[in-house]
Amino acid sequence: MKKLGKQTIQFDNPPTILETATIVGPKEAEGPLAKYFDKCLEDEFWGEKTWEKAESKIIKETVNTVIHKSGLPSDSIDYCFAGDLLNQCISSSFGLRELNIPFFGIFGACSTFVEGMSLAAIFADAGIKNVLCAASSHFCSAEKQFRFPLELGTQRPPSAQWTVTGAGATIISSSGDGPHITHMTTGKIVDKGIKDANNMGAAMAPAALSTLISHFEDTGRSPNYYDAIITGDLGLIGKEILTELAMDKGYNIKSNYNDCGALIFDKNSQDTHSGGSGCGCCASVFSGLLFNQLKNKELSRLLLIATGALTNATTSQQGESIPGIAHAVSIEL
Amino acid sequence: MKKLGKQTIQFDNPPTILETATIVGPKEAEGPLAKYFDKCLEDEFWGEKTWEKAESKIIKETVNTVIHKSGLPSDSIDYCFAGDLLNQCISSSFGLRELNIPFFGIFGACSTFVEGMSLAAIFADAGIKNVLCAASSHFCSAEKQFRFPLELGTQRPPSAQWTVTGAGATIISSSGDGPHITHMTTGKIVDKGIKDANNMGAAMAPAALSTLISHFEDTGRSPNYYDAIITGDLGLIGKEILTELAMDKGYNIKSNYNDCGALIFDKNSQDTHSGGSGCGCCASVFSGLLFNQLKNKELSRLLLIATGALTNATTSQQGESIPGIAHAVSIEL
Repeated sequence: MKKLGKQTIQFDNPPTILETATIVGPKEAEGPLAKYFDKCLEDEFWGEKTWEKAESKIIKETVNTVIHKSGLPSDSIDYCFAGDLLNQCISSSFGLRELNIPFFGIFGACSTFVEGMSLAAIFADAGIKNVLCAASSHFCSAEKQFRFPLELGTQRPPSAQWTVTGAGATIISSSGDGPHITHMTTGKIVDKGIKDANNMGAAMAPAALSTLISHFEDTGRSPNYYDAIITGDLGLIGKEILTELAMDKGYNIKSNYNDCGALIFDKNSQDTHSGGSGCGCCASVFSGLLFNQLKNKELSRLLLIATGALTNATTSQQGESIPGIAHAVSIEL
Repeated sequence: MKKLGKQTIQFDNPPTILETATIVGPKEAEGPLAKYFDKCLEDEFWGEKTWEKAESKIIKETVNTVIHKSGLPSDSIDYCFAGDLLNQCISSSFGLRELNIPFFGIFGACSTFVEGMSLAAIFADAGIKNVLCAASSHFCSAEKQFRFPLELGTQRPPSAQWTVTGAGATIISSSGDGPHITHMTTGKIVDKGIKDANNMGAAMAPAALSTLISHFEDTGRSPNYYDAIITGDLGLIGKEILTELAMDKGYNIKSNYNDCGALIFDKNSQDTHSGGSGCGCCASVFSGLLFNQLKNKELSRLLLIATGALTNATTSQQGESIPGIAHAVSIEL
């Protein structure tokens, strides 16, 4: 592998995205991407007694599904990277405790899925055969933990995003036909002083901009190199902000840019305000829609940029602003 | 690099541990390792208004210290891996938001420091020049978050450990005189059904045993290969349990084994019950004492095994057991 500029790595042996899987909740099942998901749940509990246990079950079964779809015996998976939004990443730890695969816990808030893909790509480029990545989120467990108990029926402001109930998982391999991860651009923490915990898109857009520009500068590419540039998950408001900020810096992404949070729900009929969010948003949109489009050659060059807000309820109460981060991978056939 | 068995990697170009730094709190400063720490604080706040902000300041200044001690310009650090125990890893995200270095958030509970060293070693072996790793914990922020508000003065049971206030940081480089990371053995999640949240040593000891045995099986080494085998942080009770469990499996580690949680406090005079814990425990004992002993050639072969309990307050309330994990690195001159 070769370092390009300050933030990008170009892989000598571009790792293959061997397979993906995704399981989502009932609201996601009513959205425009339903047909791309491996399984859609009928309710938020899936037979469990708590939302946290349901989220653990979702990531567990998503991981089992991707292993099954790949045709690999599970003991040929060398490492697993996983993370989620719950305190101390318990969805991943509990969901994957029977996995019996060497495990690295990661935390990048909603950027976790691409953080995992990046680290898996480093391992695969170095010769490790198969690395599994997974991330999850759950609307109910996230609302309970970050905002208000759902039972209160608290009204959400129009800038709020709707945490996706769902998980995505992928297996990154050192060999295979592709699609391939050709580059990774790792984000720096960016904090522009936004304090509105109900406007995460605005808080994360500057981090997405920073990684987007670094990617173009480091690789010498321009926006039109890609069939699609997809962030996950700035939501509808953050998407507008990023488009404007990029234009101000001389990068026109209007024609080929979209966001996982804008894609997963129907903005007219689903009442999710600013769109989707959560680790499971980018994970399920990539593992469902985007991987399908790559396999079908509808996309041949994709820049996937996952964004995370590195905050919690305590920091908001203590008057802190919201640091953001964004990690990108370039995926090509 | 070369994979040995299921869990171990042997490095072709063993990365160098270039430098370390550590800052600890007032109780740690009264312990037997005080002289090895770069800075000892006089109180738990360090001029900040909250414990969370104090913890962020500790990890920030520890990272600044290790960069300063290394003599490297900060823009020659290629990546940073960091994590902590606070919800959504806010100590690291807020403490390091001005660092301006590509950032990977990690979560392995108290195993975080060695998880970071392992990932940094993979990067360095692949040719990345300098990678920074850091981890922190804080007694007051941890008690508040995981157990009871300190103001209640709740009595702690004898099996409880005392979360270290402190941070450790290290720079892992692709070249240098050493000490070198020659192997890493990555842990699997192990859950033996222990439910006592006040006896983390018992919950984590089976994970430590699993990684210890995998390391010996994968490398063909035996306990007496090492000058020291150090876990962090099983505490006094967990240390006894691991010693017994290892003996039952045919590995006698009695003569060269110790634990960071047992080393950092004086068990007779400091009233910490079962010893130290927290991400900052292994991080500060390695970055202070152990790195010093390696540099002075008092140790030439060290097996460092950091252990983490992948749990939180919600899972305990929901009746769950405590999954553990342990990551090991072999460090040699």
